[in-house]
Amino acid sequence: MSDRAVSARLRDEARSLDAADELRAKRAEFVLDDTVYLDGNSLGALPAQVPGRVADVIARQWGELRIRSWDESGWWAAPERIGDRIAPLVGAAPGQIVVGDSTSVNVFKALVGAVRLARGEEGGHPGAGASGGAGHPGEGRDEIIVDATTFPTDGYIAQSAARLTGCRLTPLAPADVPAAVSSRTAAVLLNHADYRTGRLHDLPSLTAAVRAAGALAVWDLCHTAGALPVGLDAHGVDLAVGCTYKYLNGGPGSPAYLYVREEHQARFDSPLPGWTSHVEPFGMRPEFEAAQGVTRGRVGTPDILSMLALEAALDVWDGVAVEAVRAKSLALTDFFLRCVAAYVPKGRVESITPEAHAERGSQVALRCEGAGDVMKRLIERGVVGDFRAPDVLRFGFTPLYVSFADAERAARVLAETLDA
Amino acid sequence: MSDRAVSARLRDEARSLDAADELRAKRAEFVLDDTVYLDGNSLGALPAQVPGRVADVIARQWGELRIRSWDESGWWAAPERIGDRIAPLVGAAPGQIVVGDSTSVNVFKALVGAVRLARGEEGGHPGAGASGGAGHPGEGRDEIIVDATTFPTDGYIAQSAARLTGCRLTPLAPADVPAAVSSRTAAVLLNHADYRTGRLHDLPSLTAAVRAAGALAVWDLCHTAGALPVGLDAHGVDLAVGCTYKYLNGGPGSPAYLYVREEHQARFDSPLPGWTSHVEPFGMRPEFEAAQGVTRGRVGTPDILSMLALEAALDVWDGVAVEAVRAKSLALTDFFLRCVAAYVPKGRVESITPEAHAERGSQVALRCEGAGDVMKRLIERGVVGDFRAPDVLRFGFTPLYVSFADAERAARVLAETLDA
Repeated sequence: MSDRAVSARLRDEARSLDAADELRAKRAEFVLDDTVYLDGNSLGALPAQVPGRVADVIARQWGELRIRSWDESGWWAAPERIGDRIAPLVGAAPGQIVVGDSTSVNVFKALVGAVRLARGEEGGHPGAGASGGAGHPGEGRDEIIVDATTFPTDGYIAQSAARLTGCRLTPLAPADVPAAVSSRTAAVLLNHADYRTGRLHDLPSLTAAVRAAGALAVWDLCHTAGALPVGLDAHGVDLAVGCTYKYLNGGPGSPAYLYVREEHQARFDSPLPGWTSHVEPFGMRPEFEAAQGVTRGRVGTPDILSMLALEAALDVWDGVAVEAVRAKSLALTDFFLRCVAAYVPKGRVESITPEAHAERGSQVALRCEGAGDVMKRLIERGVVGDFRAPDVLRFGFTPLYVSFADAERAARVLAETLDA
Repeated sequence: MSDRAVSARLRDEARSLDAADELRAKRAEFVLDDTVYLDGNSLGALPAQVPGRVADVIARQWGELRIRSWDESGWWAAPERIGDRIAPLVGAAPGQIVVGDSTSVNVFKALVGAVRLARGEEGGHPGAGASGGAGHPGEGRDEIIVDATTFPTDGYIAQSAARLTGCRLTPLAPADVPAAVSSRTAAVLLNHADYRTGRLHDLPSLTAAVRAAGALAVWDLCHTAGALPVGLDAHGVDLAVGCTYKYLNGGPGSPAYLYVREEHQARFDSPLPGWTSHVEPFGMRPEFEAAQGVTRGRVGTPDILSMLALEAALDVWDGVAVEAVRAKSLALTDFFLRCVAAYVPKGRVESITPEAHAERGSQVALRCEGAGDVMKRLIERGVVGDFRAPDVLRFGFTPLYVSFADAERAARVLAETLDA
């Protein structure tokens, strides 16, 4: 078949797939142009609801009501309220997610908190004293295991958490965790999907292995929340964190979130006990007493503008089942890989994203010579992915707004770019 | 003189003072109504520049440029760029302030960092190992002193920093610090102004006493930055933090900032070493190596919407000298206290804010029976201050938009409210 005929057939197929796509109407809820935007795994596109909502938050809630908005506009309760909006997307019952701070800060809370839980340290009261928890059942646990292939910030923060809690840090490939986790392990920090390769790790079995050893499983959901079912409650995850600016489209640097499994909340002992995590924040008491529930994962004054932009962005999830998102995500990445195979001469790129659906997140990573330059040229031609050193082209597929026609065009422009 | 005549005279005086006020034109740069807004020490009023700027950040920078804005719209450099806008307001040369995270999180960075600096621990590299710094000159320093009258979050976070660094925590009244600080003290955390009474603490002499003992002075500027000269560089302050939503008008929960004195930056070893504080953030290297300069005070991805709202808010400072702000602030609080004395029957309220200018911040706190109810009624009548348990009425005076007429009206309505 001629190149032209191949292309015509793939374009036809894209049209059919788009026509049958039950999520296709969602695209209209985003501000998009004729760019093929495959960088939603770095910064999600702008949901159309956001500008008006933020304008109201600024002009009316801040500008007119001012301080009264902490009550009257629901500012104070936003971290838990928005947490409950994220909860169904990651398989969590209400009351276990609090929004605020960056992912890195939440990794710190989660890891130090996990070490303390694993050691059975008493916390949440001022007499807790120095670390060590002498005499507690988990006293001997002095190891944090971290995904060696992790997005670097998790590793840096894990290093700091280990240093401050007197643990050693053991970096391991996720597949090696079940054999390595032991009665010395306090906590294991894993990424649900590898930011570079797009590999999806097996959350249920890894969590089970960690818990079987008496350690706590802490998951970073940055690259999966909003792209596929996570099942935090169902799979027994202890703690989790995630950002909201990728598949959740919360905007640049929008607040992250922390999940604390209900059974751990009463003993969760945050290393960042700010005034808004106090049981009586306006009592202004000198002694700290932690709030009940996931509120103890809060720290300082919530960042309202960014938080309410995120809340508006979450409206696009109304009526959307994560299972449908996952089905489309896999269909999109399958189709993109087929188009790449059809268009790009053999040997020019190599997919490092697993073929097996069970091992694939919602991105495709292609190893490619001169990847940095190639991505620059792709962007000039209206196909936006990103480059990760030294040689990876990343293409993220956000099922709510990426079409099969986008996938076909991206592969075609990639081939043309490599040919030029 | 009759009540009516007293009132007429004070109103005349307010008019004269407002007419002579060199900052009076600044009021037009804020969105205000006929409310007397004396709660800018909790949430600053909306600067008129903000709505349009944020609309552009959302619609064009995020909505159109999307991921490209990290470079093209200057998102990446915002934390240091905006830090340099705050610097002259607190007496800091450029390159020493980074914006991001909440005040509480910055207190944690500053205090743990200060303890490590005091102990001479080597940091900023992955081999730093567990705390202790055996053999270093400051090894024996195992005490953090904290302002016992502090805004509670500082005390809670100081407790956590002490626990994680193996220090004991000593709460003291600021005046007792010089006698107590010793060769065992690593760091002292003080509030520049007391959030409840409005008392201004003597930053130069307290800093000198702390440094003379070989400890580090960490100041919380929440209640003074933007209200009076601070002089961080001139007075030898080691580290400082502050929020930006009070006298800096950055918006609800806007990002806080961290000041790291230039001489400490090369050894500043943050307990929250996120990916954006790495020397090569896009190198995605597994080993942490801290960036040069104050950038090592960063943690995760900067919260752009809130940060750029703050940047727009700082435009109101163009052409404003902090000394002029301070002069007006003192004149306003003096005048308000005179009006209260003239209007309110003796014994109904008692000022707990010091009379001496050198000991007064930019608020007046009045002890009053039934203060909670009184404040509710004041707010209903268009005079907005706030209530701090158990019996304090707080009135904050933001010189950029509060007028002498506001001060007179607030005192008059207070008297009427107490009379009713």
